[in-house]
Amino acid sequence: MNQQVCVVVGVGEGNGAALARAFHREGVTLALLARGTAFITSLAAELDNARAYACDVTDAAAVRDAFARIRSELGEPSSVVYNAGAGVWGDIESIDPEAFENAWRVNAYGALLVSQQVIPAMKAAGSGTIVFIGATASRRGGPRTAAFAPAKAAQRSLAESMARSLWPHGIHVALIAVDAIVDMPRTRRSMPDKPDSFFLRPDDMAASAVWLSKQPRSAWTFEIDVRPFGEKW
Amino acid sequence: MNQQVCVVVGVGEGNGAALARAFHREGVTLALLARGTAFITSLAAELDNARAYACDVTDAAAVRDAFARIRSELGEPSSVVYNAGAGVWGDIESIDPEAFENAWRVNAYGALLVSQQVIPAMKAAGSGTIVFIGATASRRGGPRTAAFAPAKAAQRSLAESMARSLWPHGIHVALIAVDAIVDMPRTRRSMPDKPDSFFLRPDDMAASAVWLSKQPRSAWTFEIDVRPFGEKW
Amino acid sequence: MNQQVCVVVGVGEGNGAALARAFHREGVTLALLARGTAFITSLAAELDNARAYACDVTDAAAVRDAFARIRSELGEPSSVVYNAGAGVWGDIESIDPEAFENAWRVNAYGALLVSQQVIPAMKAAGSGTIVFIGATASRRGGPRTAAFAPAKAAQRSLAESMARSLWPHGIHVALIAVDAIVDMPRTRRSMPDKPDSFFLRPDDMAASAVWLSKQPRSAWTFEIDVRPFGEKW
Amino acid sequence: MNQQVCVVVGVGEGNGAALARAFHREGVTLALLARGTAFITSLAAELDNARAYACDVTDAAAVRDAFARIRSELGEPSSVVYNAGAGVWGDIESIDPEAFENAWRVNAYGALLVSQQVIPAMKAAGSGTIVFIGATASRRGGPRTAAFAPAKAAQRSLAESMARSLWPHGIHVALIAVDAIVDMPRTRRSMPDKPDSFFLRPDDMAASAVWLSKQPRSAWTFEIDVRPFGEKW
Repeated sequence: MNQQVCVVVGVGEGNGAALARAFHREGVTLALLARGTAFITSLAAELDNARAYACDVTDAAAVRDAFARIRSELGEPSSVVYNAGAGVWGDIESIDPEAFENAWRVNAYGALLVSQQVIPAMKAAGSGTIVFIGATASRRGGPRTAAFAPAKAAQRSLAESMARSLWPHGIHVALIAVDAIVDMPRTRRSMPDKPDSFFLRPDDMAASAVWLSKQPRSAWTFEIDVRPFGEKW
Repeated sequence: MNQQVCVVVGVGEGNGAALARAFHREGVTLALLARGTAFITSLAAELDNARAYACDVTDAAAVRDAFARIRSELGEPSSVVYNAGAGVWGDIESIDPEAFENAWRVNAYGALLVSQQVIPAMKAAGSGTIVFIGATASRRGGPRTAAFAPAKAAQRSLAESMARSLWPHGIHVALIAVDAIVDMPRTRRSMPDKPDSFFLRPDDMAASAVWLSKQPRSAWTFEIDVRPFGEKW
Repeated sequence: MNQQVCVVVGVGEGNGAALARAFHREGVTLALLARGTAFITSLAAELDNARAYACDVTDAAAVRDAFARIRSELGEPSSVVYNAGAGVWGDIESIDPEAFENAWRVNAYGALLVSQQVIPAMKAAGSGTIVFIGATASRRGGPRTAAFAPAKAAQRSLAESMARSLWPHGIHVALIAVDAIVDMPRTRRSMPDKPDSFFLRPDDMAASAVWLSKQPRSAWTFEIDVRPFGEKW
Repeated sequence: MNQQVCVVVGVGEGNGAALARAFHREGVTLALLARGTAFITSLAAELDNARAYACDVTDAAAVRDAFARIRSELGEPSSVVYNAGAGVWGDIESIDPEAFENAWRVNAYGALLVSQQVIPAMKAAGSGTIVFIGATASRRGGPRTAAFAPAKAAQRSLAESMARSLWPHGIHVALIAVDAIVDMPRTRRSMPDKPDSFFLRPDDMAASAVWLSKQPRSAWTFEIDVRPFGEKW
């Protein structure tokens, strides 16, 4: 059967759920990955053609197992959106080495593990899409992103290396640098005075991820930035 | 009447024509600008809802006149694609000051003149799109782009300044950095040994320009790169 | 005679005077260029081995004449520091095309004219140094630098193109991106509440320009940023 | 006693030894760190005021112990040059997760561990210097640097975060991006046809590290690139 399989890694409310819904609207079969099962199970139940896979992306064996199940239950993935991300806030003096390592594991090491699972079949097919969801921190280190920014910079560098080696095999690797506060109940509560125009709507960001997955291959894009029209930058 | 007006500046075969056709498919009324009239007149005749305007973008009075006619004949532009570009190849020792100046006039000064014509109405409407077609040289100076790269860098810097001041007014300013040799009869003839995958197809690039013009404003993009999947970068 | 000749272009109080003094301490013969003569004449009188040359760097004939006199009176320049800079503040809506052009003429076009005067002799000698004094705006366009940033970006791009074509001939082209408010009576008066640590001292910046002129050529630098330790960035 | 203590981390032949010798010429007391002891022991014996400390920078306890000994035997470090670096070559398909992790541990995690050892005393003193030795890969991912580039990008991002939080405390954090093949017996043997001008001489690079450590603090530099004058870039 010809149904395409899209894996969304890091599905919580916010960007992850919006990415899942956006690709769902494209008619693909979805694999939803997250560390916990509650959110992805309920989202999978709501959508047709979607399954939930609990997976800690920092654990090589868990990643291997999850993708073995996806391949067996849904088929080879033709697209992956890597939205897993985490990072404590803090400067060099306040973060501890464990937090520094954990941010790297989720953002960069997990990205490697997941990519290595899907590349062989994409290469054999001569097509595929891998989109990483980056951040402002992918491009620069701020005073208080001593743990998060190095992890996101490593992810961006890996994505760039992958793009340059995999594009010629027909695999479109791209990165979306989200330079914004995402509109979610949690962020709204913590910033009650900000107007609507301050926030990035996850559905709007996800539209760009879908667009990247459809770009004709004579004019592929590696990197785009997204931010709200009303924001200072 | 509600018909939207799109101005494509710098319409020749290649990217300019492809941009015109792509926005035409979106149902807008087109104003096609070029220094010479032959190509734009025949293209306008081929497309519905398109008019040709001869205009040297380096001439402030000519730009003013062309946009006065556009406003009067078609209405206020809601989008502009700035594709005017020119530049001799050569290093610092071989270019002359006139060539250096001319490259800047076409790529940067003309961009300012055109933008200043359309901003007031866009600002009043609270919406609009201005897309600049950049190049690899927008981002870095090469040994043999001593005239072209400074002109493209100035254009990119102007676009960034505009994005940061105009986005909050609802005007989406963006730049497409074309990092490729464009597929045209001329480039094919000069590089007869290159495979199809070496060239960027203008229609494919134009699809990204159209997409930028439709991005929802809570997640706007300032800059994208485009290049063929098979190319080394 | 073996006395080295250093040309400082754009000598006023602040960075220009500091650059002149710093290279003077290195024992070179100085040519001081500025549009007006008052400041450079008095500075030349104060320093040994220094001469003042009135020169509008945006005027090709004036540049040619000034360098003809320098060559005849002092000898071929072995180093140039290009500190000419100007730019009105304003966004795309408030600047006029003349201001946009003038900023480009002083920062970029003049840089080309001056460089073309000194390259032939430097190339024949197999050595030389050309240092451009850039700014934050060399790297990005801000909302209110619609005239200044495109000019500085063009200058930076030209410098990069020159570096890549001239380094192999032994000519060290480099750029210092000054990301700071310079400590001068004028800036102090306009920001009376700022502490000392807020300002960049011109002598300290000039020390980096001298250092660049002495770097051993197996490890040359193209670009450095400079800013005060206490400043936010 | 007022003798300053400089720690060079990652001392082998090539850049590490050159950095040690360059700071030694400045009259500081040296602590030389490397995983193996043979090279640093013989170098310490050759230099006055130098001690060797075997230390695996990826091991938090080993780093803690080494710096406890340095503090006790030599005093608080006033400068650190972080030259530890490692990385297998390979694209995303050929590297394994262990190699990816190890590159990150040496280049980024070790950089965090070492920095956290010296920051408290530097902060108390209101002065200090931490210089990271980066690479071309610090700035971009190449097809065959899927392990190395993400590690170097993480290091650069950490350095930038540190610079922005520590400069106001008088601690100068900087990075040297070495964009070159270093002149060493090993590299000469593997590239026997390259001319002298192709290689970066470690002593010349080290001169820039010393210069950074002396920059006056009203005009500090975060990042410089270094490469041979004759090289293509």
